[in-house]
Amino acid sequence: MIDIDQANETAVGRMMAARPILRTVAPAREVIPGMRDNLLLHAGPPITWERASGPMRGAIVGALIYEGLAADWESAARMVLAGDVTLEPCHEHSAVGPMAGVTSASMQVYVVENVTHGNHAFSNLNEGYGKVLRYGAYSPEVLEKLRWMNEVMGPALASALDAAGGLDVRALLAEALHMGDEGHNRNKAGSFIYTARLAPHLAAVVDDRQELSRILAFLGENALSVLNPVMAACKAMGDAGHGVEGSTIMTTMARNGTDLGIRVSGLGDRWFMGPVGQPDGLYFSGFSAEDASGDIGDSTITETAGIGAFAMAAAPAIVTFISGTPQDALNATLEMYEITTAEHSHFTIPALDFRGTPTGVDIRKVVELGITPRINTGIAHKEAGVGQVGAGLVRPPMSVFEEALVAFAEQYGF
Amino acid sequence: MIDIDQANETAVGRMMAARPILRTVAPAREVIPGMRDNLLLHAGPPITWERASGPMRGAIVGALIYEGLAADWESAARMVLAGDVTLEPCHEHSAVGPMAGVTSASMQVYVVENVTHGNHAFSNLNEGYGKVLRYGAYSPEVLEKLRWMNEVMGPALASALDAAGGLDVRALLAEALHMGDEGHNRNKAGSFIYTARLAPHLAAVVDDRQELSRILAFLGENALSVLNPVMAACKAMGDAGHGVEGSTIMTTMARNGTDLGIRVSGLGDRWFMGPVGQPDGLYFSGFSAEDASGDIGDSTITETAGIGAFAMAAAPAIVTFISGTPQDALNATLEMYEITTAEHSHFTIPALDFRGTPTGVDIRKVVELGITPRINTGIAHKEAGVGQVGAGLVRPPMSVFEEALVAFAEQYGF
Repeated sequence: MIDIDQANETAVGRMMAARPILRTVAPAREVIPGMRDNLLLHAGPPITWERASGPMRGAIVGALIYEGLAADWESAARMVLAGDVTLEPCHEHSAVGPMAGVTSASMQVYVVENVTHGNHAFSNLNEGYGKVLRYGAYSPEVLEKLRWMNEVMGPALASALDAAGGLDVRALLAEALHMGDEGHNRNKAGSFIYTARLAPHLAAVVDDRQELSRILAFLGENALSVLNPVMAACKAMGDAGHGVEGSTIMTTMARNGTDLGIRVSGLGDRWFMGPVGQPDGLYFSGFSAEDASGDIGDSTITETAGIGAFAMAAAPAIVTFISGTPQDALNATLEMYEITTAEHSHFTIPALDFRGTPTGVDIRKVVELGITPRINTGIAHKEAGVGQVGAGLVRPPMSVFEEALVAFAEQYGF
Repeated sequence: MIDIDQANETAVGRMMAARPILRTVAPAREVIPGMRDNLLLHAGPPITWERASGPMRGAIVGALIYEGLAADWESAARMVLAGDVTLEPCHEHSAVGPMAGVTSASMQVYVVENVTHGNHAFSNLNEGYGKVLRYGAYSPEVLEKLRWMNEVMGPALASALDAAGGLDVRALLAEALHMGDEGHNRNKAGSFIYTARLAPHLAAVVDDRQELSRILAFLGENALSVLNPVMAACKAMGDAGHGVEGSTIMTTMARNGTDLGIRVSGLGDRWFMGPVGQPDGLYFSGFSAEDASGDIGDSTITETAGIGAFAMAAAPAIVTFISGTPQDALNATLEMYEITTAEHSHFTIPALDFRGTPTGVDIRKVVELGITPRINTGIAHKEAGVGQVGAGLVRPPMSVFEEALVAFAEQYGF
C-alpha cells in the first residue's frame, strides 16, 4: 500500500531542496535535450496548428521566419501542416517559455542547474515590452530585436554569468519576495537585483561600450528581465519533485492558449488537459475582455513551485496591475495553503510573519475542497502580434484535477 | 491671530509638493553655501570637540587627515580646540550626512534640486560597510576608499547623472516604498533601482572598464547606496516646508551622538536640543548595548519628511534587522498618524490600501498626546572607528518638543 502523504512529502521536499543556479546562456540546439532544427518548442501541453490560438500561431510563424525556414504566414503554416516542422511542448524538453513560449534551435536560452539533484532546466530570453514574439508578433523589428538579443546580449550574458560564477536564483527569489515581488507577474525587484548583480560582470566582459550601455538599459528597464531565469529555476524545482511513486503533487501546470495541462509527480509524463480560462483582470487602455486570448504560457511553473499567485501576500502593490485590493492578495495566499502540502523552507512572506509560501499542490485537496490553484497572468490579445492587453487572475478547469485523480486511482488501484 | 492649522497645511503641503531631482555630484566647496577649507560640517545640532562622541571625534580627525590639515588625532584635536577649524551642522548649510556626517571642503557631495520651489540640498557619498569615516574610522584604507570615491566614483556619477538628465528621487522613493523599503534603514530596493538606472549611463561615460566594473559593484552591493541622495531629497523637502509663519511643523530632527536637535517651521533657525537616546534593537554578533554610541546622524531627515520609521508598514522585512515583528512595523506607522498633519500625496503604503505615509510632525500633537516621533537607526560603536554594531529603534526626548512649544507660545503670544 502506497503512503501518499509520505510520497508527497518526498516530492515537495525535493522541490524545496532544489537549488537552481543560473549557469549560462547558450543556443537551444546546443543545450536543450532533443532540440533540433525542424523542431519548435511551445508553451503548454501539446497543440496542433489547427487548434492553436492567434498568439501561438503568430509566434510559430515568427520563429520559422527568424530561422529562415519560412518566408511568411502561409509558407510557415504549410510547413507545420505538412509535418516538415514539429511542435512539441517546452515542458517535454526540460524547458519553459512565457506566453507562446516558442523557442527555436538557434535561440539563446538560459541554462539553470539544480545543484542539489543535478537536473537542468531552460528558458528563452525575455524580450521586454511592446511587440514581441511571445505575444505572436513577428514584424521585422520584432525579429531584429530577437537577433540582437540572440547575437549580442545572449553571448554577453553568458560571459558575465561565467565571470560571476553563476547566480543563485533561489536566493534571488527569496530576496525579491521580501521586496514586493511574487515572482510571476511582478518581477520588478528581482529584475533590478538581476541587473545590478550582473552589471559589474557585464562591464568587465563587453568590449563595446555602446552595446554594454544598451544591454544594461535593456535589462534594467524591463521589470520582467528576470522572469525567464526564474521560470527555468521553478522548472528545475518542479522537475526535481516529479516522478515520485505514489505522489499526488502537481509538478507541471501550463497553457498553450487553447488547453491547460497539468502533470502529476506519481503519474509519469501524461498530460491532463482541459480548456483554458479567460483571465479576469485589468485591461490596458483601449482593450477589453473581448480582445483577450485564452490563458497562455508556461509561466504557471511559478505557481507550481510555490510562488506567483501563491505568494501574492508578499506583493500587495501588484493589485494596481491585476485588480483587487491588498486584502485580496493576502487572501489569495491564505487560500492556497488549503490545497498545498508544505510551507516553503526558502520562500517566506514578511507580512505573514515570515510564513513559508504555500507549496506543492495536492490534487486530492483540489478535488476534495473544490479549490483550484490561483494563477497570476498577463493577458494576450487573441490576434497574433497585437501584444499584451492586460493582466489578471485565472484558474485552471477543475476537470483536469478530477481526471488526474481518476487516473491516479486506476494506476495505484485505490 | 495666527491660524496654526492653516500654517501647518501650508508647510506640509510645501514639503509634499517639493520634487527633488538629483542633479549632479560636485566638491562640497564648489556647491555648498558657506563651505570653506577650514570648515567641517557634521551631523546633528551644534557640538564642540569637548562634548563630541567617539564616532564624531573620529570622523572629525579622519576628515582633517584626509584634507591634509592634520597628521593625527592629537594635532587634529588641537586644531579644533584652537579654533583653526570650525565645526558647523550640515543642516545649517542645506546639507545632511548619515551618522557622524562629517563633510569637508574637497569631498564630493550629491546635489539635489527641488524643482518645485528652487531650493537645493546636499549630502556626501555613501561609503558602504565596514570601517568607514561616518562611524569614526580613519585608518589609511578608510581614507584610501574615500579618495577613490571622491576622485573616481564621484566624477563618474556626475557625468552619468548629467547624461541621464538627473534622477527623480521622489519617484524612486515612491517605487521603493512599494518594494519593501522604508527609505531610512532599509534602502535595498532603492539602491538596486539607483544602480540599475545609472548603469547604462555610467557605461556610456566611464572609459576605464575596470573602474566602471568597480563602480557598478560598489553601488550594487551596497544596500545604502541611495541613502545619501534620499537624505538630500528629504532635506530639500524639509527645507521647502521651513519658515512658514505660525507653523508648528517639525522641519529638522538630527543627532550628533550627544544631543538631538529639532527645528520648527515657524520658529526660524533655532535648535531645540536634548540628550540623545540609546537605540533599542538587534546587535551584531559580539556586540551589546554597552558598546553603543548615543544616537547619531542626520538620517532622521527621512522621518522628518514622512518616511523611515514613519513608513515601516511598507517594510515588514526590516524587522529581521532592527527587531520586532511585522505587526510592530505596521503599528509604528499607525502610531505616527497620531502626531502628523497629512498623509503623503506621493509616498503610499500598499499594505495599508495605499494610504499616504504619515507626514509632517506637529509638535503640538507630540506634546499633547505624549507620543514622540519614531526613528529607525543604525547603531554606532561608542569608540571611534569600530563601526556599526547593530540597528534598532529610538525616540527623541520629549523635552525638545516641550521647549519648542513654549518658545512657540512666547513668539506668537499664546
